[in-house]
Amino acid sequence: MPNPGFTGSPLNRVDHIRQDLEAFNRLLNDWRGRVLGLDGLDPMVSAEGTLVWQGMADVSLDLELILLGLHEDKPHFVPIVEAKGGPPRSPAVWLALATLPAEEAAIYGTARSLIDWHNGHRFCGQCGGETKTFRAGWGRKCGSCNKEHFPRTDPVVIMLAEHEGKALVGRQAAWPKGNYSALAGFLEPGESVEEAVRREIHEEAGITCGAVRYVTSQPWPFGGSQLMIACIAEATSTDIVMDTNELEDAMWITKDDARAALADAPDKKFGAPPPFAIANTLLRRWVAE
Amino acid sequence: MPNPGFTGSPLNRVDHIRQDLEAFNRLLNDWRGRVLGLDGLDPMVSAEGTLVWQGMADVSLDLELILLGLHEDKPHFVPIVEAKGGPPRSPAVWLALATLPAEEAAIYGTARSLIDWHNGHRFCGQCGGETKTFRAGWGRKCGSCNKEHFPRTDPVVIMLAEHEGKALVGRQAAWPKGNYSALAGFLEPGESVEEAVRREIHEEAGITCGAVRYVTSQPWPFGGSQLMIACIAEATSTDIVMDTNELEDAMWITKDDARAALADAPDKKFGAPPPFAIANTLLRRWVAE
Repeated sequence: MPNPGFTGSPLNRVDHIRQDLEAFNRLLNDWRGRVLGLDGLDPMVSAEGTLVWQGMADVSLDLELILLGLHEDKPHFVPIVEAKGGPPRSPAVWLALATLPAEEAAIYGTARSLIDWHNGHRFCGQCGGETKTFRAGWGRKCGSCNKEHFPRTDPVVIMLAEHEGKALVGRQAAWPKGNYSALAGFLEPGESVEEAVRREIHEEAGITCGAVRYVTSQPWPFGGSQLMIACIAEATSTDIVMDTNELEDAMWITKDDARAALADAPDKKFGAPPPFAIANTLLRRWVAE
Repeated sequence: MPNPGFTGSPLNRVDHIRQDLEAFNRLLNDWRGRVLGLDGLDPMVSAEGTLVWQGMADVSLDLELILLGLHEDKPHFVPIVEAKGGPPRSPAVWLALATLPAEEAAIYGTARSLIDWHNGHRFCGQCGGETKTFRAGWGRKCGSCNKEHFPRTDPVVIMLAEHEGKALVGRQAAWPKGNYSALAGFLEPGESVEEAVRREIHEEAGITCGAVRYVTSQPWPFGGSQLMIACIAEATSTDIVMDTNELEDAMWITKDDARAALADAPDKKFGAPPPFAIANTLLRRWVAE
């Protein structure tokens, strides 16, 4: 079973160095330093389908660098480029993800989430003052009220409701024709994972659920930084009542349906999510149970 | 086995009403509406040890109201009071939690997290402009750049490393003398739950871990809004090397040690976390395994 997407980064995050300005400055002057090559927000990809790393001298002095971590003693950085407010993910990044080795996708995902966060937090939410980078790019501090801000990650629940061997999947109108996936939604303040799973399935599909079991998790770096928490919930009802603002369609599938979709079989009932999406991992785990 | 703390709210969050300004305004004019009684940020508590609900007429017209949800057709609100920047939790709220029924603690927790978030997001992180409440108090919108902001919840991993029937617990210097708990830390962008668990145990105690299993989750409303994700990790080493910035002490305990602590036995080896903290639930689940 492959690992969930965007996991397996080989970088050591060296939190103690982030908190030590002198040590961080030494790394900024380390000639072995490597800087992630970006094309806008997308990764530069080599002819071999891997990430492109540049030397410290290749980077504009105007750009601040985030310390992603150490690997084989070499510091790895990414510049805080300006986000131009395009779509959350471009066709180019989708293509890149088809060839990037898993551990490189994990590095890119971390970098991408941090860049997004910096762009959205140049001002202090508490007082409106300008913020400045600190902690080696893992925080911003307000120049007016001194409030410290740290990168945000939003927990998202993504789940299959299950009933008598069948699982519930749905599709949004904007997705490629025929594609279905697990239902998903943001966890809200004051909820446990289990409560958010039951609420989302009920809101989107009108299905009530009992016990919820955790399956796995992965980060997701598009449209911010999300923690995807994949679960399977025992449905206690089966009549689908869709929230048509969220879903265009929803249906119960068998494990054979899921197998055909995951294998991209010619007679498949629906198109499966891509391998780097946790819904793919979740369907695989469900089929294997 | 009791449910994790701050879960079990009976309120229906009625997301569809938040998105419907007319429907929200009707609820604001519903004479059956109930408003959560607060003393600063702490809950008002009745002689019976329960939450105090006020009528709509009891609330200052200057205060904006968040729609917490519906229960028995009655809308329940909480006012967005100003946070005075005191300690993240007062002795009064700790006392209140000893008597509040579980489902009322869950309601208070949701309210408290939302109030904290509003206070910290009166300005837009993207442009510094002033933000205004929208979506029935479940969002803020920038008056300058129109960016929409939604409540933040930070995922935190909290875990026991386990080795040959013993579990690793630690204590921070600021805690009451003799108290120990599970190690914990914020999940970072680009990490899965499992990766964050392994990283935190290694950073704080120098212990390496292999497989990680999820146990349960709960919200935590102090110092913002946190999603506590409780796990048990298989330790592959046992020599503790503490990060003394994080921990004052760490030790391996047996299930008998944990039982004595949870029972508050006179000869207990350490003081256990309170019942509404997920570390308490985690220790109970571990002992019961």
